[in-house]
Amino acid sequence: MAQKLNTAPPKGSRDFLPGDVRRREHVLSVVRRVYSRYGFEPLETPTMERLETLLGKYGDEGDQLIFRVLHRGETLRSVLAAGKTIEERDLADSGLRYDLTVPLARVYAEHQAELPRFFKRYQIQPVWRADRPAKGRFREFYQCDVDIIGSDSLVCEVEVTSALSEVLDELGFKDAVIRLNHRDLLSGLIEASGIPKELEITAITALDKLDKIGAEGVQKELEGRGVTTAAAQALLQKAALAATATSNDSLLAALAEAVKGSTAGEKGVAELRQLLAYAASAPCRSHLKVDASLARGLSYYTGPIFEIQVPDLAGSLGGGGRYDNLIGMFLGRRVPAVGFSLGLERILVVMEERKMFPPLDAGAEVMVLRVEEATTPETLKVASALRAAGISTELYPNVDKLGRQFQYAAERGAKLAVFIGARERDAGTVAVKVLATQQQSEQKQPELARAVLGLLGRG
Amino acid sequence: MAQKLNTAPPKGSRDFLPGDVRRREHVLSVVRRVYSRYGFEPLETPTMERLETLLGKYGDEGDQLIFRVLHRGETLRSVLAAGKTIEERDLADSGLRYDLTVPLARVYAEHQAELPRFFKRYQIQPVWRADRPAKGRFREFYQCDVDIIGSDSLVCEVEVTSALSEVLDELGFKDAVIRLNHRDLLSGLIEASGIPKELEITAITALDKLDKIGAEGVQKELEGRGVTTAAAQALLQKAALAATATSNDSLLAALAEAVKGSTAGEKGVAELRQLLAYAASAPCRSHLKVDASLARGLSYYTGPIFEIQVPDLAGSLGGGGRYDNLIGMFLGRRVPAVGFSLGLERILVVMEERKMFPPLDAGAEVMVLRVEEATTPETLKVASALRAAGISTELYPNVDKLGRQFQYAAERGAKLAVFIGARERDAGTVAVKVLATQQQSEQKQPELARAVLGLLGRG
Repeated sequence: MAQKLNTAPPKGSRDFLPGDVRRREHVLSVVRRVYSRYGFEPLETPTMERLETLLGKYGDEGDQLIFRVLHRGETLRSVLAAGKTIEERDLADSGLRYDLTVPLARVYAEHQAELPRFFKRYQIQPVWRADRPAKGRFREFYQCDVDIIGSDSLVCEVEVTSALSEVLDELGFKDAVIRLNHRDLLSGLIEASGIPKELEITAITALDKLDKIGAEGVQKELEGRGVTTAAAQALLQKAALAATATSNDSLLAALAEAVKGSTAGEKGVAELRQLLAYAASAPCRSHLKVDASLARGLSYYTGPIFEIQVPDLAGSLGGGGRYDNLIGMFLGRRVPAVGFSLGLERILVVMEERKMFPPLDAGAEVMVLRVEEATTPETLKVASALRAAGISTELYPNVDKLGRQFQYAAERGAKLAVFIGARERDAGTVAVKVLATQQQSEQKQPELARAVLGLLGRG
Repeated sequence: MAQKLNTAPPKGSRDFLPGDVRRREHVLSVVRRVYSRYGFEPLETPTMERLETLLGKYGDEGDQLIFRVLHRGETLRSVLAAGKTIEERDLADSGLRYDLTVPLARVYAEHQAELPRFFKRYQIQPVWRADRPAKGRFREFYQCDVDIIGSDSLVCEVEVTSALSEVLDELGFKDAVIRLNHRDLLSGLIEASGIPKELEITAITALDKLDKIGAEGVQKELEGRGVTTAAAQALLQKAALAATATSNDSLLAALAEAVKGSTAGEKGVAELRQLLAYAASAPCRSHLKVDASLARGLSYYTGPIFEIQVPDLAGSLGGGGRYDNLIGMFLGRRVPAVGFSLGLERILVVMEERKMFPPLDAGAEVMVLRVEEATTPETLKVASALRAAGISTELYPNVDKLGRQFQYAAERGAKLAVFIGARERDAGTVAVKVLATQQQSEQKQPELARAVLGLLGRG
């Protein structure tokens, strides 16, 4: 009897059928290959983390979005039986991974003795957020992070954005721009606009919404938070310098002028100049574009910040920057770090829309049919021989009508159907049919694999 | 200030550092490659499932081991504020994936229209069980499942065990045995031993412990559950026939004798004979070994059952069989299926102990050093050129003393150190040092990649 159960994947999550897995795997294999070439190494951390590790790291809103894992057994029973008012914190002490940075900081503290001085790691794992699901926003989604830990040098920024540039190029995002700004340059612009230091985070948060709500919206938000009209206009004017600049160099010259006298601002400009000088000798050169309006909402960045933008697409394909005060949080000391997080789900959506996927392996190339029970041994031997030659081969399991088997082979996307009946067995041959052309030939059994490779164009 | 936090991974879980990830990836890449060659396709399902999907599928003990995800926000607040006695079921409606079979059944019900008639899928994902952690037993661990859904034919058993045999061969487990038995043969043996039908599951559960507690232990357990001494002895005697048989054929002959008159038993013997006749033409032939004492505790098997055993190792590397009444559970009809679940963690432990891993990629092959600030552009170009030639290359980020950089390169396992100072730059050369021999040479810049490939033995 059918249980009337809801068999859809739970809200905000997805089943990945074979085609979905293959498209994801295509992207991830490029990411892994490029990152490995740059000397980044893979790290994986547990799905569950202690709540004390997670809480307080993502702001109040983030804390609310953490999935908590209910206590079990005796622990839970004693909480429920205590007769006291029960609070959320009594019910759980672990939660699901919320990002890949806090686990990295924990791993760095725990395993420091085993890790190299410059720890270059990539990590590709799902994270979970109890967000309201929306188009392209899921409760379980993958992050692809790459980070260099342990160096202050700006060559790290060049390495990270170069690896990223090669990923974008190999995936086919030749037109992607890596917008580049600097936390200190932003501070300088804010200072030079006459916005008081205590409103700096407010101003960055507002500026971060420029893409979404426009200059007018940002102006309104700034004024609502106590920034004067003149100061808000001054900031927006400076942030808009990018739009008119013809090159990174001319823009930096204009920005240098705009922040003159601000120590932070001048340091920001100097570091961006140095970074771009390095970048001229590296693959990131063709993608980096200075943009003083790039804010990135996160308050933990301490140096250069970047974000991938693709023409005609609102939002970004990922972002990152330098964050020198986070990785050491469990060690109680400053540990410099620069990293980037790619948004796998958005990349997949855009690649799908733009039809950017190359032909990906589908099911088996060859379907071996079962003509009759009596030739099953020969049929199994044929399947083995093809597989031994590296040909992906599916065996039709039932002795059904041949027409039905041919139809199934075609539906499944096999290129060839191969079979042995009593006639072929007695003649020492195998029948091979090219499904697209319906051309059928007989092959001598010992030569089958070679003939099939030839018909598959892999001779 | 250091927060005194516990930075170890939570109980029963592990951090996988780069070497760990690479060893796991080595095993999984073999699994994926072989399964793909057989026409199996990848499936991935969400981490969380509805509790109504999970509960009641794994027995009472299993239900207790499911990690439940606490309600959040308004839902949780209203439960806590209701003023009623709170029970576990009020606090959660979803839990973490406990195995890969129930999600497969859910996916099969949900997406049937998109799935082929014979759905051959593999799935490699973590599962979570709130078990007491022990050596080799974790709360988060990977399962690697492979299943053929939709056919009653015994060639499916041959296909699954053949794919498995090729995985075992490619990993280096040439001595692994796939023990083979049949649920109906077991029923027949139990019947022929004079054990009443209603004690069949009890008898199978007891027999399943033969490896662990020995014949005496099983005898004791059977008697404790109401089986007569004579019947228990009769069953153990029949189960022990395997030990004296010289071949699968002679054993099946003896077993056929032992179950004569039992319909189930005779059917079991007939199917095993058919399966072995097929297997003679397939890669599983060298691994399959009939063993009437193999019980596998799970009550859901309906036909042949198998389990991988490696000499000198208690327990198995995985098991499976035919289970025709499970995949259709959400559809309310019988859907035939046969599958196998590989135990990744045990495979890794055994391969580690036996030193079965081939040399795996470690970090970068080449470390590019930074001699001085002035030659950073040339240094970056060298790193790019090497990477463009497919050579994994790490760039030492800081301008430290050269001795320190060489030492780091050696510690990190790089084979070559490559660098450009002012002298090399002016001469249009690059210095290349083989770290093992300390031999240093100069290479002309345009010929660097070729020279490095040569020194790496990849010319």
